[in-house]
Formats: sequence, C-alpha cells, structure tokens
Amino acid sequence: MTTQFQKGKVILVGAGTGDPELLTVKGMRYLQQADVILTDRLVSPAILESFASTHARIIYVGKQCRKGASTPQATINELMVLYAQDNKRVVRLKGGDVSVFSNILDELQTLVENGIPYEIVPGITAALGAAAYAGMPLTARGYATAVRLLTAYKSDVVSESYWQELAQTDDTLVFYMSSETVAHVVKQLTKYGIAAEKQLAIIEQATT
Amino acid sequence: MTTQFQKGKVILVGAGTGDPELLTVKGMRYLQQADVILTDRLVSPAILESFASTHARIIYVGKQCRKGASTPQATINELMVLYAQDNKRVVRLKGGDVSVFSNILDELQTLVENGIPYEIVPGITAALGAAAYAGMPLTARGYATAVRLLTAYKSDVVSESYWQELAQTDDTLVFYMSSETVAHVVKQLTKYGIAAEKQLAIIEQATT
Repeated sequence: MTTQFQKGKVILVGAGTGDPELLTVKGMRYLQQADVILTDRLVSPAILESFASTHARIIYVGKQCRKGASTPQATINELMVLYAQDNKRVVRLKGGDVSVFSNILDELQTLVENGIPYEIVPGITAALGAAAYAGMPLTARGYATAVRLLTAYKSDVVSESYWQELAQTDDTLVFYMSSETVAHVVKQLTKYGIAAEKQLAIIEQATT
Repeated sequence: MTTQFQKGKVILVGAGTGDPELLTVKGMRYLQQADVILTDRLVSPAILESFASTHARIIYVGKQCRKGASTPQATINELMVLYAQDNKRVVRLKGGDVSVFSNILDELQTLVENGIPYEIVPGITAALGAAAYAGMPLTARGYATAVRLLTAYKSDVVSESYWQELAQTDDTLVFYMSSETVAHVVKQLTKYGIAAEKQLAIIEQATT
C-alpha cells in the first residue's frame, strides 16, 4: 500500500468535496510528495494548505464557465507534459471525483500520446459527500434500488423523453451543477407527472 | 477540519474499496481514535491493520448472504447502542461508501431512537474506485452525460420495463454486486436491443 511517486509521472487526484479531510489517504500522500500541483479553482484552498508540500509549485488552472478568468484545456495539457518531461512529480488536482463530470478524457489522451506514466486516484464525489453529511442514504431498501448522477446545468442537456423517464422512476436522482436551473428541473419533473409526495433536497456547500 | 471523536458517539465510516489508502483522511483519524470498531466482513483487513488503534476492540459483524456466518441486524444495532451508552468511541465500518447499497437506514434509526450522537463519513464507492484504477471515466463529453449505480444481484430486482429503458439509454451503467447474474444482465440488455457497439467491462477486486 506504500504510495511511491516516481519522477516524471502525473497523478490525477480527486480532491473530494469541501472538507479537506474527505481527501483520500493516497491523495494526501501524493500531495505531500508533489513538485508541481495543477489545481482547479473549485478545489478547497484548505486542502492545499493542509497537505501540499511547502516546496511544491502550485498553479491554478481552473476553468470557470461564464465567470471570467479561465485556463484553456490546451494550456493545462501542455503544462502537464512540460513538467512531467522535466522529471517533476505532477499532481493534477480536481474537485470531487475524477470520473464523474470532470472531463479528464482530454488530459488522459494527452498523457498517453506523450508516453507519460499516470495514475488516477478517486475522490469523494458531491453526491456521496452531501448524502453522508445530510444523513440521507442514496439507496435504501423499500425506497430506491438505484441512484443516478446527472446534470441539468443547461436546460437542454436533458431531453424531453429523458425528463419523462426521470419523472416516473423510483431511482434517487442527483443533479450536479444545476443550482441555476433548479426551477427548470422542478418544472420539467412536474410536467411529466412526478409523484407529489416525492421529496426534494437542495444542497449547496454540503461538506464545507 | 480537526476531527474530534467524543465519547459515547457512533461514526459510520465508508472504508472505500480494497486499497487501504482509498480511505479518507477523516476515516483514518476516527479509526485511530476508536475504542470499538464494528466492521463488515468485506472490509479489507489491511485497513484495520494500517489504521486501527492498537487498543481498539474489533468486532466482525458482517452479513454474508448465502455464505454461512452472519450477524443479525438486531445484534449490530444492539452493539452500537451498548458501546455508545458505555461511553465508548464507536466506529461502524462498512465497505465502499455508506450511502450506496449499504442499508444503513436501520442503524441510523436505531441511533436516533436511542438519542446517540452520530456522524457519517463517506467513502470511495466501487464505481469510483474501479473507474479510477481502470482509467475509464464514468461520464465524458460526447459519450455519457449521466451515470447510474444499480444492482441486479437477483434476477428480479430490475423490472422488465426498466431493462427496456436501460438497453436504450446513453447513461453509463454500473451494476453492483451482480457478478453472479452477469449472464442475465447481458441477456436482458440484448433482448431489449442494446446497441451492438456498446462496451461492457467486468471488473472484480478493482482496487485490491
């Protein structure tokens, strides 16, 4: 289980949700050993303060839709390659988990194309963090036997036929990045006849 | 972010998947401070060896369907209450995450009914661990905008109409605890016309 961080390698790490202690032990150890940390803007600064090595170079490369400063994906890709080829230990830090709504495919392809060794460390995704801190299991016998992680950050991400299906399912539904479209979400689910007794929780900053 | 573990409290902790380093920092700290650990049989023994305090009393209370020794839920509930009322720091350790397919509702109700303070610490659930270690994101632009965590551990858990919907969706589907029914899963999806080019990965012991 010992985490060895070889030079010239990139580790993509899910930082978990806000609470720095929701980082994995593996993620913590890699941050402690990193030479360069490429971090999204949404990652809690407390995580870097708590765990990043003091000699690490921290570079903010977040993409923020509609909110000003943004690092193009091509630049992020270039920085990863540049530092890895310079024999640095590189952590690419992302909020939540790396596999859910984090768009890492482009970065993985870049690493493969350039022959750079990499590793992925999962993180607590928002659904799990919010469920735990709110005390609401996402599945439970007699209530829901499945859970869906989806998004409606734009009103047209979900098709009309899919809205219809969402309104009828017994699955627990978790909408990511949808605070600005919540009125639309409710309207669509109501339009397609979601049961009146169905419960809705709106959670922001769940674990900060 | 300092983790304080008061006496007479129960912490429900998701242990993550096999690799002990996928435990959260918070889960690690609570294990180090615990007086009593009630652990499921599926939790990796390496987690307890790595992080449990040497003075902690470790009690195996796992439920194993169709595989012999099993601790009744009532006994698990009684033990939590007993030790918490005896002013112990109790960790209830479960594999993966606490909110997904872990049936904690009964335990939460018991704690509430007995007025015992509790806290829930999320863990890396199997879908996230497997996706990270296999290098396969669960969502990706142009591929899937949603992911479903479901189960077909018995052939009748999923209804015919839901199979039909699963065969047609673009969502990434993750079946938990379904290794014994995988032939049935494939048969049902094929029956309802899943696209021939749809890819299937079968992953066991993903992060051990």
